[in-house]
Amino acid sequence: MYIEIDDSSQIPIYLQLANQIIKGIAHQELLPYEALPSGRTLAGDLGINMHTVNKAYHYLEDRRFIQVQPKSGAIIHPDAVRTATPKELETLKERLAPIIDEARCLQLSTDTIYQLIKESESND
Amino acid sequence: MYIEIDDSSQIPIYLQLANQIIKGIAHQELLPYEALPSGRTLAGDLGINMHTVNKAYHYLEDRRFIQVQPKSGAIIHPDAVRTATPKELETLKERLAPIIDEARCLQLSTDTIYQLIKESESND
Repeated sequence: MYIEIDDSSQIPIYLQLANQIIKGIAHQELLPYEALPSGRTLAGDLGINMHTVNKAYHYLEDRRFIQVQPKSGAIIHPDAVRTATPKELETLKERLAPIIDEARCLQLSTDTIYQLIKESESND
Repeated sequence: MYIEIDDSSQIPIYLQLANQIIKGIAHQELLPYEALPSGRTLAGDLGINMHTVNKAYHYLEDRRFIQVQPKSGAIIHPDAVRTATPKELETLKERLAPIIDEARCLQLSTDTIYQLIKESESND
């Protein structure tokens, strides 16, 4: 899987990395139980700090997208693809809300937002 | 307009504040040209740091939701409610993408996401 870090982005690097791993899972490029590179290796490959990779891994671990095992390293969580819990649904809604508010200021109809979603879904 | 800051939230305080002002604009509780309190006043009212309010105001100014005038203070931007530019549409799509990827891992259909959006829209 190809990971790209954009230094000029406003999104913190650890989050860019985490988002791309989630994208990999969503698009079945990364499968449950699949091993991830060690923090050191991935940091070296991407030319970023190892702590940044570790931060991304912690973020993904908190959200149950990966499992970090002290000795054998990180793997894609066995339940990375799962049915959302009510709490996960609530969190998604909370994250969507400010974007939807902004879209409303920009006079986008719900249908246009739906269209944007369709387009981001097909952006592989 | 009632603004509520949640100290226990993972969302930075400046962003909570900015998001609520955008929500106020989206719901027409804050109208173009309307004056906002000074950074000092709002900070005092909310019990937060004045620099945090200023950071929120800068964030909103960058996105053309408010106008900050050196002497007379901040007002809601005359064009706060406007037609999205292609760049603004692109930014919205970029912000939606990681949430949609996550929703896909959580096996939410596009229709369910649409439903979530409808619900966040009616969350006044």
